[in-house]
Amino acid sequence: MTATPTPRVTIKDVAARAGVSKSAVSLAFNHKPGLSEATRDRIFLAARELGWSPSLTARTLAGSRVDVVGLAVCRPARVLGLEPWYMDFVSGVESVLAEHSSSLLLRLVRNMDEEVGVQESWWRGRQIGGSILVDFRADDPRVGLVERLGLPVVAVGHPSLTGGLTSVWTDDATAVTEAVRYLAALGHRRIARVGGAAALGHTAIRTAAFDEAAGALAGAWQVATDFSGDAGARATRSLLTASAPDRPTAIVYDNDIMAVAGLSVAAEMGLRVPDDVSLLAWDDSQLCRLTHPTLSAMSHDVHGFGAEVARTLFSVITGGEGGSHPVPTPVLTPRGSTAPPR
Amino acid sequence: MTATPTPRVTIKDVAARAGVSKSAVSLAFNHKPGLSEATRDRIFLAARELGWSPSLTARTLAGSRVDVVGLAVCRPARVLGLEPWYMDFVSGVESVLAEHSSSLLLRLVRNMDEEVGVQESWWRGRQIGGSILVDFRADDPRVGLVERLGLPVVAVGHPSLTGGLTSVWTDDATAVTEAVRYLAALGHRRIARVGGAAALGHTAIRTAAFDEAAGALAGAWQVATDFSGDAGARATRSLLTASAPDRPTAIVYDNDIMAVAGLSVAAEMGLRVPDDVSLLAWDDSQLCRLTHPTLSAMSHDVHGFGAEVARTLFSVITGGEGGSHPVPTPVLTPRGSTAPPR
Repeated sequence: MTATPTPRVTIKDVAARAGVSKSAVSLAFNHKPGLSEATRDRIFLAARELGWSPSLTARTLAGSRVDVVGLAVCRPARVLGLEPWYMDFVSGVESVLAEHSSSLLLRLVRNMDEEVGVQESWWRGRQIGGSILVDFRADDPRVGLVERLGLPVVAVGHPSLTGGLTSVWTDDATAVTEAVRYLAALGHRRIARVGGAAALGHTAIRTAAFDEAAGALAGAWQVATDFSGDAGARATRSLLTASAPDRPTAIVYDNDIMAVAGLSVAAEMGLRVPDDVSLLAWDDSQLCRLTHPTLSAMSHDVHGFGAEVARTLFSVITGGEGGSHPVPTPVLTPRGSTAPPR
Repeated sequence: MTATPTPRVTIKDVAARAGVSKSAVSLAFNHKPGLSEATRDRIFLAARELGWSPSLTARTLAGSRVDVVGLAVCRPARVLGLEPWYMDFVSGVESVLAEHSSSLLLRLVRNMDEEVGVQESWWRGRQIGGSILVDFRADDPRVGLVERLGLPVVAVGHPSLTGGLTSVWTDDATAVTEAVRYLAALGHRRIARVGGAAALGHTAIRTAAFDEAAGALAGAWQVATDFSGDAGARATRSLLTASAPDRPTAIVYDNDIMAVAGLSVAAEMGLRVPDDVSLLAWDDSQLCRLTHPTLSAMSHDVHGFGAEVARTLFSVITGGEGGSHPVPTPVLTPRGSTAPPR
């Protein structure tokens, strides 16, 4: 946690400066009704000026659950179970929650409306001290919800998608550009991308970056999938069955399970990796080092990303600084699955 | 949910038959203090005789959280993030929770003492309606805890480990025996098993079953690991570096990520699978179909297992039958990684 209250400033000082009672300060920081907008603003201003923030203990005593953090995920259960990114991310979040003796309240939702309802009911029912929001879309309704509720959150997503919310994000556009440049530098002129779910904001960012980076090549293809291995296999089979001039010599994938599936499809079709086709994975979970050949990948520390999200959320819950926190951009880890085209 | 209250029997009838007030019945079913043991027994007997059980709604109104289910996991965060079994299991649990608009409260713990404290605090703090208990050990302290608290649980583990708790379990001993018999039927006489964490009850069951099944072979080896791909790779390397008569011609693994790692080690050592060594995975997540060659595996539906556990827990929470629920025993799915020894 980055925000520790200055020892000598207390809730009493904040109340005095704002000209309200201590319980009014408590109401404001626990996002409860009963105060006018003007009073709340005055209290937050006074707290900011004095450098005061409520401690975890104070919030707990005030009745707010700060030892539980919410995470609603809008993906089919089956697909979620197959996605190494989520498991790595959740384990990173849990590693920090465990240090704080805190738990994760995890819920699968069918759509955005359901998530909005779940977040509101968790917060109003005092089941959580804050939430982690993932899978942002264009015009995401959670931005307005959070402002309306005063729910402490960390948004996992690019600031262009997450409004003014505190966010932790990866520069996907730069990483996609680097991936394409690397394959082009190897000599590839026909490059495909097997992307994730088209409705997700970060998929759209990657798609636009690929269009831009691959625009000058002789051939560029993009396929949208649902992130599953089966969908990655289908997309790879479809790309590789075209006859030579219409066939990519390199494929970049939006996660690693799809790249593993692509490797298997190449073998099934009698194509050698990397001699006949180069494959480049994304995320770089342990899978990429367990295949043969090993998979080149755009690598980042997904576990560490989850941990950073949880740390940022604890900071927000205790009244620390919000803002926009980029984590290191994925970097290329070359392994056995990429080479110059034959 | 299997238990629906008989429409005409109400809490009033139960109270009358037990000779207590309605609120005493409510206290008993919500596991709250204030009743003598004898009174509680009388109330439960009356309810059983009348076929009455509290509905979800009634329990919610009584202040117990039935829309949250607890799961504490005692594994290092990093290892958890790498274990497809857990993700498949949790996604299966979530698929049923979602149907009930319920959430999973997930917590990583460092040891059994911490889990015991977490379960007690969740239940006494009314944060959960029940819990899923996993990774049972010999003399597991959670059996006594549950009896003391009256916490509704489902234990994931063999009845020999889970005391009288309601349990959902897989017959691991039979499955290990089948795996060894299959490899022996192919002609293998030197078989190794790369097992999971030795402290876990289900690992001990598998170890004993392997000893029994492989006892008459020319060579049998077992290695304990932490279930991670890296540990599986190390174990495989160690087994395969022995010279021919001391080297297994077939290896069975306790999960599939270790088998994928084993496949990669065989390739790195210039050994062909299955010509030089047969590999048999366990659990059979999608990984086994994505490698080349594809991995033969002991298959079971881990997602469906998680769903069954959640359904059973809802039944327990609503006062339905407990008992011991075996799910189908893993069956052999032969693929490309097993063959007669050369």
